[in-house]
Amino acid sequence: VMNGIRDKVLTLDTMNQSVKNIEYAVRGPILLRAMEAEGRHWGVKKPFTEIIRANIGDAQAMGQKPITFMRQVLALCQYPDLLSSPSFPEDAKKRAMRILQSCEGHSTGSYSASAGIQMIREDVARYIEHRDGGIASDPDNIFLSTGASSAIMAVLNLLVSGKGKTRTGVMIPIPQYPLYSATLAEFDAVQINYYLNEEHYWGLDVAELQRALEQAKAHCQPRVLCVINPGNPTGQVLSRENIEAVIRFAYEEHLFLMADEVYQDNVYAEGSQFHSFKKVLMEMGSPYAQQLELASFHSCSKGYMGECGFRGGYTEVVNMDPAVKQQMLKFQSVRLCPPVLGQILIDIVTNPPQPGEPSYQQFQQEKKAVLSGLAEKAQLTEKILNKQPGIHCNPVQGAMYSFPCIQLPPKALQRAEELGQPADMFFCIQLLEETGICVVPGSGFGQKDGTYHFRMTILPPLEKLKILLEKLSQFYAKFTQEYS
Amino acid sequence: VMNGIRDKVLTLDTMNQSVKNIEYAVRGPILLRAMEAEGRHWGVKKPFTEIIRANIGDAQAMGQKPITFMRQVLALCQYPDLLSSPSFPEDAKKRAMRILQSCEGHSTGSYSASAGIQMIREDVARYIEHRDGGIASDPDNIFLSTGASSAIMAVLNLLVSGKGKTRTGVMIPIPQYPLYSATLAEFDAVQINYYLNEEHYWGLDVAELQRALEQAKAHCQPRVLCVINPGNPTGQVLSRENIEAVIRFAYEEHLFLMADEVYQDNVYAEGSQFHSFKKVLMEMGSPYAQQLELASFHSCSKGYMGECGFRGGYTEVVNMDPAVKQQMLKFQSVRLCPPVLGQILIDIVTNPPQPGEPSYQQFQQEKKAVLSGLAEKAQLTEKILNKQPGIHCNPVQGAMYSFPCIQLPPKALQRAEELGQPADMFFCIQLLEETGICVVPGSGFGQKDGTYHFRMTILPPLEKLKILLEKLSQFYAKFTQEYS
Repeated sequence: VMNGIRDKVLTLDTMNQSVKNIEYAVRGPILLRAMEAEGRHWGVKKPFTEIIRANIGDAQAMGQKPITFMRQVLALCQYPDLLSSPSFPEDAKKRAMRILQSCEGHSTGSYSASAGIQMIREDVARYIEHRDGGIASDPDNIFLSTGASSAIMAVLNLLVSGKGKTRTGVMIPIPQYPLYSATLAEFDAVQINYYLNEEHYWGLDVAELQRALEQAKAHCQPRVLCVINPGNPTGQVLSRENIEAVIRFAYEEHLFLMADEVYQDNVYAEGSQFHSFKKVLMEMGSPYAQQLELASFHSCSKGYMGECGFRGGYTEVVNMDPAVKQQMLKFQSVRLCPPVLGQILIDIVTNPPQPGEPSYQQFQQEKKAVLSGLAEKAQLTEKILNKQPGIHCNPVQGAMYSFPCIQLPPKALQRAEELGQPADMFFCIQLLEETGICVVPGSGFGQKDGTYHFRMTILPPLEKLKILLEKLSQFYAKFTQEYS
Repeated sequence: VMNGIRDKVLTLDTMNQSVKNIEYAVRGPILLRAMEAEGRHWGVKKPFTEIIRANIGDAQAMGQKPITFMRQVLALCQYPDLLSSPSFPEDAKKRAMRILQSCEGHSTGSYSASAGIQMIREDVARYIEHRDGGIASDPDNIFLSTGASSAIMAVLNLLVSGKGKTRTGVMIPIPQYPLYSATLAEFDAVQINYYLNEEHYWGLDVAELQRALEQAKAHCQPRVLCVINPGNPTGQVLSRENIEAVIRFAYEEHLFLMADEVYQDNVYAEGSQFHSFKKVLMEMGSPYAQQLELASFHSCSKGYMGECGFRGGYTEVVNMDPAVKQQMLKFQSVRLCPPVLGQILIDIVTNPPQPGEPSYQQFQQEKKAVLSGLAEKAQLTEKILNKQPGIHCNPVQGAMYSFPCIQLPPKALQRAEELGQPADMFFCIQLLEETGICVVPGSGFGQKDGTYHFRMTILPPLEKLKILLEKLSQFYAKFTQEYS
């Protein structure tokens, strides 16, 4: 008690320390600084005209247009009076009616079942079967979710138990998408880092998995292996052989496998192809297909649609104990249901217009335009960045990001240390303040000690991206000279 | 290992035991049984023609129509081509344009800021100021959320800390909405029950708060007081004097106050009026207004709009430590952002059409029609149920539920015990199987030992509700006779 004002109930000291320990770089200090810059908090004149946010995989924020058919169906579902309007194509109307009929009270304003609308779970299962060349998928194994993030958190939540040396250990790639480290901090689970091989296009080496696992066994009970494919932030696409090796490893070490496959539509590099963990697992046959426990995650936020704001996603679980599936359903039922409009988007993603339907052509054209644009930008990013000595950028085989390695001169490291900032954070802040370009330091994703990176999306429109990459290269040259 | 099949990684035994301990009645066994009944799993011929779901506060599932203006704005935001359509009113278009301008990339498909779209936070703050007779509200204290549920869970998550006897204790009403008990189980916090006074219209007695608190101090550290007003499942509306007494109690006992005010628009009884905790707190002046920490929750799922499927909500925090507010923002940023369409609905709820605008009349008419319909059904429910000897139903002053007390004969209690079911669960299952009426047993919400209740929504259309109430009364009479 000071000056008659007593301490608050809830302070940094008294709060949940696990929540306090969470770090989340993608929307961390750099973004806050960028937002300040957009506001009036920067007193001095800024040396740039606009902030370019290349910090987050948010396609529509970067000007990508929504897929017309998706928005038509959504509008019809929202406001069914439009079903009699001549300005909507018949297949969009048919689709909207089918969806409304599967909603309680024929309205998107009702709660759905906790695992999602049954019809949509069935459409998702059919989509997976089609994607995986006919391998069966059971709608009862499909859980719709509030984006992929909430589903990943829910499955991790189920898996975290034990105390001290029996505490659940979760293997995650480094670099990783910081949802993983943040969630493990929140749940007080043990994070086990396995390092992707930057020299080998960010490949996933089983020897490294083994090393990380053996080391971790001394202080926790490793129970989960998380793989992000295509990689975020690293952009690599795993080969089929690699996936098989990972599955054998997970089986032999008795690990639950979590496959973050939200970028499954985002594969650009020649020779790269998306193989789902589910398909490879099933094709490997006994004992893997019958026994390895797998959860795979997808989302409507990425791909060609980029509908982040709707928070739609789904999980397919394979070989999950039916009693645990019931627990997962109960867990989801406390949260009532995922947003119904996100569910509808997942329905359209998994059940797009078919050949012969009025919207088929346009849908395919729009989809291809986005994906070929991304492929072009992926190549451009690698090409321009690699022209700059001191920057090395692996090919962006998939996903939406480059994660280039940058050499930083000793004086820059020293200055960063004086400021109490990771060196790549120091670089990124300088970059932002001088050029308006907003990227996320590699330290937010994890990296080998003594290496420095940043993550940058490839989402800005081509011309803008070109300017951004050139500005960034120039800034890097100037920065390294200044601190040499 | 049995027959070459080894144990799964994730089983009921190895899973997170706190998640396993969660119970959630509203979507529990009764609903599952009802869903079975709708499917083909009941082999025998059912003695009823349809399932009537009175188990969950889902207005549109019960046939309530959405508010036209809300859906018009949503459709326009989804598919901006409609902005040139003559069939939408000008104020809906203006509103949609204003919202789209506040979205990144002018699209609802982009992520918003983690705390929600800034313009909408400002609209919410203005709404609160208006609601509370001019008392200031700061947009920086407003956090948009995925329904009220996720916000309540987030604030509780911040508050839970300590071990053993210093573990956070959270006071909740009994009967309660089971989100609270489920969340406390998940977070492994200590649940402190205070009993509402059924004899006094489910009133909240400070003496009972004190009793519960003193008793709890022996085994935990009470830090939070949760109040639901208007009450769920109990339907009472707190008087201003009562709220003042609760605030004094929370202040004196150094508790963080959580006010679940999602039914603030649902007040029916003559003489009853909604008073927000924020307003009463501020009007009480020093030391309460400057020091008591409060979080108040609202939602677009209830009220007159009943837009559950969109998962929109907001929290206002008062006197929260600014450093903790930053933590709350970080916590929300890991989840990226609440669904943008739910945010838009919150915007319309808090910033409805104004007098003189083209949609004003219709909006007001639709709103009033829903609320007066609910008021009529609240009265009807009390009246019909109280005609039946053995059933006692308090007035439904507010919210959307009745929570009648039922006397159960000894033989029914005995039969339930043989079946291993709580006695009111036994009653509700029999009711469902014989009549198709789906209500939730009081044991799912908590009740005084030896008393039995069920929770029933007042949402079915008037004629259907009448039939439901009469059928239910008749079944009760038959049931008690059968087990006498």
